[in-house]
Amino acid sequence: MAGNSFGTIFKITTFGESHGEALGGIIDGCPPGIDLDLVAIQMEMQRRKPGQSSIVTQRKEEDEVQFLSGIFEGKTTGTPIGFIVPNTNQKSDDYSHIKDTYRPSHADYVYEKKYGIRDYRGGGRSSARETASRVVAGAIAKQVIPDIKITAFVSSVGEIFIDKPYQDLDFSNIEVNPVRCPDLAAAKKMEQYIKEIKKQGDTVGGTVTCVIQNMPIGLGEPVFDKLHAELGKAMLSINAVKGFEYGGGFCSAKMKGSDHNDSFNEDGTTKTNLSGGIQGGISNGMDIYFRVAFKPVATLLQKQEVLNNKGELIEQQGKGRHDPCVVPRAVPIVEAMAALVIADFYLLNKTYQTK
Amino acid sequence: MAGNSFGTIFKITTFGESHGEALGGIIDGCPPGIDLDLVAIQMEMQRRKPGQSSIVTQRKEEDEVQFLSGIFEGKTTGTPIGFIVPNTNQKSDDYSHIKDTYRPSHADYVYEKKYGIRDYRGGGRSSARETASRVVAGAIAKQVIPDIKITAFVSSVGEIFIDKPYQDLDFSNIEVNPVRCPDLAAAKKMEQYIKEIKKQGDTVGGTVTCVIQNMPIGLGEPVFDKLHAELGKAMLSINAVKGFEYGGGFCSAKMKGSDHNDSFNEDGTTKTNLSGGIQGGISNGMDIYFRVAFKPVATLLQKQEVLNNKGELIEQQGKGRHDPCVVPRAVPIVEAMAALVIADFYLLNKTYQTK
Amino acid sequence: MAGNSFGTIFKITTFGESHGEALGGIIDGCPPGIDLDLVAIQMEMQRRKPGQSSIVTQRKEEDEVQFLSGIFEGKTTGTPIGFIVPNTNQKSDDYSHIKDTYRPSHADYVYEKKYGIRDYRGGGRSSARETASRVVAGAIAKQVIPDIKITAFVSSVGEIFIDKPYQDLDFSNIEVNPVRCPDLAAAKKMEQYIKEIKKQGDTVGGTVTCVIQNMPIGLGEPVFDKLHAELGKAMLSINAVKGFEYGGGFCSAKMKGSDHNDSFNEDGTTKTNLSGGIQGGISNGMDIYFRVAFKPVATLLQKQEVLNNKGELIEQQGKGRHDPCVVPRAVPIVEAMAALVIADFYLLNKTYQTK
Amino acid sequence: MAGNSFGTIFKITTFGESHGEALGGIIDGCPPGIDLDLVAIQMEMQRRKPGQSSIVTQRKEEDEVQFLSGIFEGKTTGTPIGFIVPNTNQKSDDYSHIKDTYRPSHADYVYEKKYGIRDYRGGGRSSARETASRVVAGAIAKQVIPDIKITAFVSSVGEIFIDKPYQDLDFSNIEVNPVRCPDLAAAKKMEQYIKEIKKQGDTVGGTVTCVIQNMPIGLGEPVFDKLHAELGKAMLSINAVKGFEYGGGFCSAKMKGSDHNDSFNEDGTTKTNLSGGIQGGISNGMDIYFRVAFKPVATLLQKQEVLNNKGELIEQQGKGRHDPCVVPRAVPIVEAMAALVIADFYLLNKTYQTK
Repeated sequence: MAGNSFGTIFKITTFGESHGEALGGIIDGCPPGIDLDLVAIQMEMQRRKPGQSSIVTQRKEEDEVQFLSGIFEGKTTGTPIGFIVPNTNQKSDDYSHIKDTYRPSHADYVYEKKYGIRDYRGGGRSSARETASRVVAGAIAKQVIPDIKITAFVSSVGEIFIDKPYQDLDFSNIEVNPVRCPDLAAAKKMEQYIKEIKKQGDTVGGTVTCVIQNMPIGLGEPVFDKLHAELGKAMLSINAVKGFEYGGGFCSAKMKGSDHNDSFNEDGTTKTNLSGGIQGGISNGMDIYFRVAFKPVATLLQKQEVLNNKGELIEQQGKGRHDPCVVPRAVPIVEAMAALVIADFYLLNKTYQTK
Repeated sequence: MAGNSFGTIFKITTFGESHGEALGGIIDGCPPGIDLDLVAIQMEMQRRKPGQSSIVTQRKEEDEVQFLSGIFEGKTTGTPIGFIVPNTNQKSDDYSHIKDTYRPSHADYVYEKKYGIRDYRGGGRSSARETASRVVAGAIAKQVIPDIKITAFVSSVGEIFIDKPYQDLDFSNIEVNPVRCPDLAAAKKMEQYIKEIKKQGDTVGGTVTCVIQNMPIGLGEPVFDKLHAELGKAMLSINAVKGFEYGGGFCSAKMKGSDHNDSFNEDGTTKTNLSGGIQGGISNGMDIYFRVAFKPVATLLQKQEVLNNKGELIEQQGKGRHDPCVVPRAVPIVEAMAALVIADFYLLNKTYQTK
Repeated sequence: MAGNSFGTIFKITTFGESHGEALGGIIDGCPPGIDLDLVAIQMEMQRRKPGQSSIVTQRKEEDEVQFLSGIFEGKTTGTPIGFIVPNTNQKSDDYSHIKDTYRPSHADYVYEKKYGIRDYRGGGRSSARETASRVVAGAIAKQVIPDIKITAFVSSVGEIFIDKPYQDLDFSNIEVNPVRCPDLAAAKKMEQYIKEIKKQGDTVGGTVTCVIQNMPIGLGEPVFDKLHAELGKAMLSINAVKGFEYGGGFCSAKMKGSDHNDSFNEDGTTKTNLSGGIQGGISNGMDIYFRVAFKPVATLLQKQEVLNNKGELIEQQGKGRHDPCVVPRAVPIVEAMAALVIADFYLLNKTYQTK
Repeated sequence: MAGNSFGTIFKITTFGESHGEALGGIIDGCPPGIDLDLVAIQMEMQRRKPGQSSIVTQRKEEDEVQFLSGIFEGKTTGTPIGFIVPNTNQKSDDYSHIKDTYRPSHADYVYEKKYGIRDYRGGGRSSARETASRVVAGAIAKQVIPDIKITAFVSSVGEIFIDKPYQDLDFSNIEVNPVRCPDLAAAKKMEQYIKEIKKQGDTVGGTVTCVIQNMPIGLGEPVFDKLHAELGKAMLSINAVKGFEYGGGFCSAKMKGSDHNDSFNEDGTTKTNLSGGIQGGISNGMDIYFRVAFKPVATLLQKQEVLNNKGELIEQQGKGRHDPCVVPRAVPIVEAMAALVIADFYLLNKTYQTK
C-alpha cells in the first residue's frame, strides 16, 4: 500500500536500498509453464548496470539476479517468483558527507521530513539502483508476451534530437553505440556532448522514445486505467522523469481535428497514427509509441550549496561515481516498465471471457 | 478491477453511459464529520457542464447531482457516499447513424473489438460525460483538504499560448472569460480562434495548466506511487489527454544539472522550483504545477470517412452538439482529478503515525 | 478502501443506509455479452425481502432493483453495472427513540465511537438491509457461472437440527416452506419454534448450510486467498454471523488423520469428502459445502436496558418490525456471497493462460 | 493478485517453496521510527520451528531470518522491509517418491491440475513451511501495536478439551509445556495422547483459541471488511484450518436473543461478552476471542493408497519427518496472523482523521 507494488495481475513488489544487503522483489501472478530464458534476463541487467562505457558512471555493480522461488526445472510454476540482487560494491564511506545535509533536487530533504529518518547512504530507497528490480520483472514480463516487441531508444540528449520519425530508424543500431541512439550521426554528437558535460562535472537531461509493435487489439481498461494512463504512471515512476506524451502528444494540442484524426483502412488499421496505437484507452493494434523526458542528474561533481539539518547553507563538493546523463541506461528501464504494463493488461484481458 | 475505480483511501468508483438512465459513483473512504458544502459541489458541476457559453457545445445537460447515502444532517458519516447524475437530455436518435460505423479517432472500434458489444449511443461509456462523476468526487475531495488550493486554467489553444509564468497571472480572471484563461489578452485571441474553428465545423486542441498551492511536505509514496506518477495517471485518464509534464517537464530534458537544480533557502524552501514541488515522488512544500495536453475533439461537423462493420469505408456527415475545443470545460475536470490524488495521499500519509 | 468493496475481478462496491434515499452498488468486471435474466435477479430479491411469511418481519420493503448502466439491449456490455434499490417504506419516526441510546449487541455504540457521528435511523449502514445490494450482485454472479449450482438452506434453528447429511436431502423442498429447510419434518418443528419465540418478543439463532455443486477443478489462490478463506470472509461479512466451517469443520479437529484423509478414486475424485471440495485452498472438483452460524437478532420486542449518550442505563421497550429468526431470509444472502466468491475466482483463474 | 499478499496498509507479500533456496517476504507500509526488537522476532521463529520437543517433527529447520532492507541503525525507515529465511535443511531425495503421485488430502493433485506443473519437493508452495514468513511479519506487526496483547494457546487435541473459560486460565503456563496448553492437567493428557498417536504413525487434529486484550474501540471496516471477517480469512488461510468462530460462535446459533445480548455497563463496557469484542464488524474495546479448528495432518507414517499420474491407485508408505499434531506449532502462526489483521486496521483507522 505504501507504493512499492506495481500491476494488478502480473504484480511486482520491490524492496531495497542502494547500500543495504540486497535489492529484490516478488513477482506474483506470473502464469505457469513459461520456459524462462535466464540469459535474456541477465542480459537486460547488463544493459542497465553502471560501468558499461565511458559515458556512464564507472561505478561497478555486479547486478547478478538470484531467483529464490517460483521456478522449477527451468519453468515458472505459477507461484510467486522471489529474487534478490545483492549489493556487492557499495562504498558507504563515500556517502558519509551527506549524512546531515540535503542535496539540492535530491530526495534527501523530503524523505527526512516524511519519515523522520532516512538511510542516507547513496540515496537509500530513492536511489535509481532500485530500478534493477524493475528490470528483472520487466525481463520476465517480456517472456509472458513474446509476440509483442518493445523497443526503447534515446531520442534526445540536451538540445541534440533525432529528427526522423521512428519508422525511418534502424533499431538494430541501438545497442551498437554507447548512447543507445539508433540514428548514428545523432548518436555521435550526443556522445561527444556527454563527454564534454562530464568533463565540466556537470550533467544533462534527455528523452527516451519507446515503440511497442505487434500489439493485440483490446488491451487497456477504461475509464481510469486507460492503457496510456498506466504507461504514463509507469514511466513517471522512474527516477528523474518529468514528462510523458504518447502519439501526437503535446503537438496534438496545437492541431485541428481535421488534421489530427486517423482515417481508417478497410481492415481496421489506420492511415496515420497520431492516436499512438490507443483510442479511448484501449489498444487498436497499431504501434504504440511514447516519449519520456528525463531531467539532468542532480548530483554534480562541482561545488554546490547544500542545506544541513541545522538550517545552514554550506558549500559541498559533489563526489562519487555518477552518470553525466541518465538516458542511455534508462532505455532498458523504460522497456521494462512498458513490458510490465502490457503483460498485466494482456492477462487481465483474459477475464472478459466467460467460456 | 476493470478500471472504474480511482484512489486508495479516498476511492471513487464510477458507472454510467452517456445515454443510459444515469451516471454516478460511490466514494468510499471519505472521512466522517465533514460539513459538506453542497452548493460548492453543484458549482463545480456547472463549470463542467455543456452549454455555458457560445464557444462550448450547446447541448443542455442539467447535471444535477443527487446524493443517496453517506451524508446525515449535512455531514459526512464515514460510510460510502453514493450519488447519481440523471441523464435528462439525451437524444438517442441523434446517434443512430453511428450504430454500425466506427468514427475515426473515437473509441467505437476498440470497444466493439474488446467487448464484442457496445452501447453506441453518444459514445456510451467512452463519452466525456463520464467525467461528471469525477467532478462530483473531486468537489468533495477539495473539502477534505480545504487548506490546499488547486487552480487549473487554459494555457494554450492551438498555437495561441500564454507567454507568462503562472506567478505573473491573476487567477481571479479565470472564471470571468469563457475560455478560462487568466491572461485576458490571450483569452480574447483564443475565444476568437475557437469561434472560427467552430464555423469551419472543425475542432482544435489545447493545454491546461494546474497549480497546487499551500501543499504540506511529505505527500506521495515512493517508489511506484510517486506523487507526480499518480497525478500523471489521473490526468492521462481524462478523455482526449495526450501528454503530461510537471515542473520543468520536457524542457528539463534539454537542460544541464547546474542550471536545473533548485538551490535551498535556509528554511527548506527552494530559490527556484524546476522540481515542480515534488522531489523523489514526495511533495516538498513548494507549489506543484503541471501541464496537460488535450488533442482536438474527434467529432467534426464535417464530412469524414468512417468504417462500417462490413469493412467498408463510407462518407458520413458529423452531427450533434459537440465542443469545438474541449479545454475550457476540461479545467474543472483537471482540478477534480488533482483533488482526488492529493486528498488520497493526504489521508494515506496519516498511516505513518504509530501514535 | 474503507471496506465497501468485495472481489478482485468481479468486484462489487455498495452504498446505502436503511433509511436513506436508496441502497445500491456498482459491479465492475462483469464480462460482456451475458444475456441477463432480470426476472431471476428480481426473484432473488423476493427471497431476501421482508414480509414473505408469518415467521419473518412484516415490514414491507419493495426492494425493486433499477439498473442504470452496463446493460444494453438486454446484454452486459463489460462496463460497470450501476444499480439502485430505492428505500420506499421507511418510517423514520419508528427509530427516533434510539437517537441518543445504544442498544445492546447492536452496532450503535461502535459506530458512534468510530466515526463520531451516525445515522441512527434503523441502524443506518449497519442494517441488514444493506445485503439487498449483495443479492443483486450475487444474482448476476450466478449468471456468470451458470453451470455451477449453489444451494443454501437452513440446517438448524436454535437446538433443532437437520440430522441427515446433505446428500440425503431433497433440495426442491427448500423453497416450499417458510423456514427454507429441506427436511420437512425439521422444518415444521423449526417453524413452530420460531412462532413461539416471536410470541415471547424474543429471537433465536440458527445455521445455514451451503452446497456448491458441479465445481471446476483449480479455483482458489494460495496462499492467503485460499478458496475457503474467501468463502469464510464472505460469510463472516454478513450481519449476525459468528462462525464458519467447511468440509469436516470443527469435527475435523477431533479426528485422526487415518480417518480423515479422503482416498482417491482412479479418476481423481475422492471416496469421501471431508476436505469439503477444497485442498490447499484450491477446488478439487468435489462438492464444496460449508456451514454458517447466525446469532439471534439483537432487537427484542421486550424491555431491555440500554445505554444513553450521557452514560446512563435506562430501560427501553423494543419496537418496530423485526425478524424473530434471521436464517430463513439469510439463505439467499449466503448463496449470493458464495456466487460472488466463485465467479471472481472463476474469472481470475483465466489469467493463468498465456495463450 | 495471485493471492500471495495480505493486508491493506501494513501489507505482507510472501514467496518461497519448502525446498527452494529460501522463503521470504516484503512488508510494505510499516511505519517508520520503530525500534525493532530483533530478538523478539527470532523468538517467534523459534516457537514456530520444527524440532522443539518430542511431540513435534524432529526435522531441523534453522529458520533464521535475514533482513535485507527497510531497517537503518535498528529502526524501521518506512521503506519496504525485505527478508529471507534460507532453506538449509531440505533433503529433496526424501520426497522423490511423491514426484508422480498425489497423496490423499494434500494439495498435490490440485496444484498439478491448476498450474499444469508443480514443485513436488516437500509440498512446494503448499507446505506449511510458508508460514515462517507470516511469523516474521506478525512479529513486526506486534511491535507496531505494542499495547495490544495477543495470546493464542491450544484449547483441544482430538477429544481432549480445556473445560474452563479463558478468563480462568493462567497464560504464563502456555510456553512451559510442549503442547502450549495453559491448563496443565489437560496439557498432560494431550501430550500423552499425541505420543500415542505418533507411535501409531497417525496424526490428530485440534483447536487453537486466541484472545486479544487491551483493544482500542473502533477498529474494523464495515461492511465487507468487518474485523472478524478479516480475522476469519486470516485464520482460514493457515494450512489445515477447517473452521473459525468468534465470541459465542456456533453456540450463539442455538441461543435466544434475551440470553445472548451483552448488557452495557455505564462506561460502555459490557457485562457479558458473547459478542467477542466485536459489534457490527468494529471492535468495542472488550476482549476479542476466537477459536480455530485444525484438521489432522494428512501425511501419515503408514501405508496409504495414493493416485499416480497414470490414474492408478498404488500403496505408498508415508516417510519423512512430520508433525503428529499441528496445533502446538500453530499457536505462534495464529498470533502472527491476528497481529497482521489488528495492526493493519489500526493504521487504516488513522485515515478517518482530517486534521
